[in-house]
Amino acid sequence: MATASSLVTGEFRLIGRLARRFSRSHPDVARGIGDDAAVMRISDATSQLLTTDLLAQDVHFDLRTATLQDIGYKAAVANLSDIAAMGGIPQAMLVAIAFPPHTAVRQVERLYQGMMEACRPHGVTLIGGDTSSSKHGWFIGITMTGTAASRRILYRSGARVGDELWVSGTIGDALAGLQLLGGRSARSLTARYRKTLIARHRRPTARLALAQALASRGLATAAIDLSDGLSGDLAHICEESRVGAEVAAPLLPVSSALRAYAEATHRPVTQLALQGGEDYELLFTASPSAHGSLIRLGRQLRCPLTRIGRITGRQLGQRLWLADGSITPMPRLSYEHFTPSHNALSSRRRRTR
Amino acid sequence: MATASSLVTGEFRLIGRLARRFSRSHPDVARGIGDDAAVMRISDATSQLLTTDLLAQDVHFDLRTATLQDIGYKAAVANLSDIAAMGGIPQAMLVAIAFPPHTAVRQVERLYQGMMEACRPHGVTLIGGDTSSSKHGWFIGITMTGTAASRRILYRSGARVGDELWVSGTIGDALAGLQLLGGRSARSLTARYRKTLIARHRRPTARLALAQALASRGLATAAIDLSDGLSGDLAHICEESRVGAEVAAPLLPVSSALRAYAEATHRPVTQLALQGGEDYELLFTASPSAHGSLIRLGRQLRCPLTRIGRITGRQLGQRLWLADGSITPMPRLSYEHFTPSHNALSSRRRRTR
Repeated sequence: MATASSLVTGEFRLIGRLARRFSRSHPDVARGIGDDAAVMRISDATSQLLTTDLLAQDVHFDLRTATLQDIGYKAAVANLSDIAAMGGIPQAMLVAIAFPPHTAVRQVERLYQGMMEACRPHGVTLIGGDTSSSKHGWFIGITMTGTAASRRILYRSGARVGDELWVSGTIGDALAGLQLLGGRSARSLTARYRKTLIARHRRPTARLALAQALASRGLATAAIDLSDGLSGDLAHICEESRVGAEVAAPLLPVSSALRAYAEATHRPVTQLALQGGEDYELLFTASPSAHGSLIRLGRQLRCPLTRIGRITGRQLGQRLWLADGSITPMPRLSYEHFTPSHNALSSRRRRTR
Repeated sequence: MATASSLVTGEFRLIGRLARRFSRSHPDVARGIGDDAAVMRISDATSQLLTTDLLAQDVHFDLRTATLQDIGYKAAVANLSDIAAMGGIPQAMLVAIAFPPHTAVRQVERLYQGMMEACRPHGVTLIGGDTSSSKHGWFIGITMTGTAASRRILYRSGARVGDELWVSGTIGDALAGLQLLGGRSARSLTARYRKTLIARHRRPTARLALAQALASRGLATAAIDLSDGLSGDLAHICEESRVGAEVAAPLLPVSSALRAYAEATHRPVTQLALQGGEDYELLFTASPSAHGSLIRLGRQLRCPLTRIGRITGRQLGQRLWLADGSITPMPRLSYEHFTPSHNALSSRRRRTR
């Protein structure tokens, strides 16, 4: 039997261990495990991106609070967002699903309908997959491919000391939506704000146009999509780039809806913003010389871009500046996996990519 | 609620319906849903193959009768075999797994160990994936890529009237192995035969060298791997090629082990040979003019190739010649999915590819 120390836990660096043990370098693989998507060389100029996700009922979604159409939509967005985070153009999708006996054809179609709603605007085609039965609920495996100009790919590893740290849109909304769906009481919250937050959880947007512009114009040095939450995803950039980072809490872009939610639930809005996963906003680093271009790009795409901090030396770690001017180590608030207090509604996952 | 007629059943052509409704033609997609793997154009000369499978505990494998290492091995072989069936060279693999709480790291590693044992001899690299927790057992999603010369790809749709029908190796062994593991009594069966049959179930072989030779030498007109069983997989070739087929029961290549098992269990050996899935042998069609070359190729690769029938006009359907000279419609014996008599040990699945 497994001893306590050998169990897979939130702390255990399973992915790294699997990568070290089972991944080998290969001439056609520009990047294997360790980024938002794997990168395969197609030609000198062009690379292929590949990403995969597996979603399990009652771990990543709850059929009591989400329709199959919403679940399909969001599952596709998670993969689109991985392609976006590399600066790529999504291309094709393979879908493997397992579902319980007595499932209606219409239910399966609703799931696909949601996936294709998210994919069609980006020209992504369904090219294959696998359907089978499951003894225990729904499982959805999506693999998405994309293409990218080899020299313009946005890796997690490109951040340099002195770079500015930016984030798109607003963060924390999807977590608040999830908590509202999970029954969190927030009586003073208006119906409109409630609806906004839940919609951000159910129907997130992948920042494809933004990421492609950042990549093609060479404006960003590193990027990651916010799936695990800002504090966790920033750690990935720092680890892969071997740098540290400072985030200024008062600069974090939060919506009025989130601010109202934080007040209604007596929770610090900064905590929600740092912890919230599944916003699928883009966290990226850029040289200070790109500052003006980024402001203009944000306006042009009608996608607010906010500078929230900067990249420092590795030895400083990841730190948070608070409104009172004090500085603390960045709290590790991201979604964690395999924890005893596992919340059936949250999308806790660790990525091999 | 779902009415009886709208439930997903074995008869219901879910895959075809999903393909018609959600798949769109795309300039880069040479072949989407409907073959062993999807085919994407990379250049005029080269195409990429993509295939995905999702395996569910207690549906596709049983931890009481198989180790995680064996399960990983077999899951990888199923994907290698899909690439083989297109005449391709497997290249990279993404693995998404979900597993229950309290899983030991060693268990996860064993699964990967099995997968890599199957993959390494073919130079396939692990490039990414996803790990997450599951409330209900293990789920394994594998996506494999491969490459192929665009003009040499073996489609299911290439069979022509007058072609000969061939199969590699021996068939039915894996099914017998599965039944033995499931507790089927076969007292008169020797320990050696028992071991042989169980090994064929646990550690099947993908026919990569054979398929690549068939493709590069232009010897086959159509191919499919035997995952669902000969009668079911032949139906896929006939459907996609719009042809009929005749199979001569006495020509079906069966091992001495299977013959002994059939005797010991009082079951017709032909039925086992036609029904047995997961042998991962290659079923292919070839012009009669290729006959001599195929015999030589089989000898060269030490892989027995047997002509078992021929391709006929579509209106004749799929027929079986019996030893007494009588002819009957081919019995539909292949693994079926979503059936009430679902066997937890079998690998019933329907493929979107």
